[in-house]
Amino acid sequence: MSTSGDLPGTRRVYTGRVINLDVDRVVLPNGTTADLEIIRHPGASAIVPILSDAEASDPTLVLIRQYRHAAAGYLYEIPAGRLNDGEDPAQCAVRELAEETGYRAGRVEHLFSMFTTPGFTDERIHVFLASGLSEGPTAHEADEILKVEQVPVSRALALIEGGEIQDAKTALSILYLARYSRHE
Amino acid sequence: MSTSGDLPGTRRVYTGRVINLDVDRVVLPNGTTADLEIIRHPGASAIVPILSDAEASDPTLVLIRQYRHAAAGYLYEIPAGRLNDGEDPAQCAVRELAEETGYRAGRVEHLFSMFTTPGFTDERIHVFLASGLSEGPTAHEADEILKVEQVPVSRALALIEGGEIQDAKTALSILYLARYSRHE
Repeated sequence: MSTSGDLPGTRRVYTGRVINLDVDRVVLPNGTTADLEIIRHPGASAIVPILSDAEASDPTLVLIRQYRHAAAGYLYEIPAGRLNDGEDPAQCAVRELAEETGYRAGRVEHLFSMFTTPGFTDERIHVFLASGLSEGPTAHEADEILKVEQVPVSRALALIEGGEIQDAKTALSILYLARYSRHE
Repeated sequence: MSTSGDLPGTRRVYTGRVINLDVDRVVLPNGTTADLEIIRHPGASAIVPILSDAEASDPTLVLIRQYRHAAAGYLYEIPAGRLNDGEDPAQCAVRELAEETGYRAGRVEHLFSMFTTPGFTDERIHVFLASGLSEGPTAHEADEILKVEQVPVSRALALIEGGEIQDAKTALSILYLARYSRHE
């Protein structure tokens, strides 16, 4: 669909490898017509892997230290990745867990879903909890630079408070887990 | 700077009103050369406004319900907005608070900073806490559709657990506040 005069519509201005950029002409609820830039994203899944059993007083998480060009360095993150075409979010989460850390999930449950930055993208991340982990081989992509680290929840919470965990999905997921899942 | 052959460099593929899109050719720490799409963003500030005094057992937050085209509806959010050219993040935070809610902040403190989605953007949001609020006029932009709501922290935490607060910066900021600032 192309914009024609003042009619609402979508104009694709860039088609990329990871993201597509549209300019949408929309009529807002207050009647204003606006041209809004929006990064179209297929959505993603992320997963908080717990090594210990759920009853442990300070369970250990599996985190990754990933090189991020956009952050000009390494960030602490939970495993995550984009949904493939038609992929179920839970399947995506366990696939990314296996590819990035080698761990296979015995049990997976949905925690919550979030918009990463809704001012300019429709990206939504579905966050899962993985437990009953067993080890296997990893399968990193060539542009994924990462190391796997085991971090107790108490230490992860200190890293958030100290500003050393700066990735939003990661900080949010750990705080969510600590508050609502009694995994601390 | 333009890419030339295989040399590292940046190619601007779109210059927009809110965002710019570059394709960066980079040499990663493992020696791999990759073309990475990156949304260049000036950064943003967000602010958690507390109406009650800091010692209250369940203080009231000022949240907004904002229409987001990318989310196809209204989202609960904390006040936030992009940094103007050269603007100090704390100044940006109090400016956005005043523009979006009318409230003037008596006291502002930095809570943390976060990358919203570092896989494809360098956007970083600086989150502040505002207290000692006084009321004044709002100044919405034409494409900002929002309502101001007073929400106790206990209710905000229930909205996060129930999946009704879906904006990452908002859920993260409230959970951060509840855990580390003893504002609950």
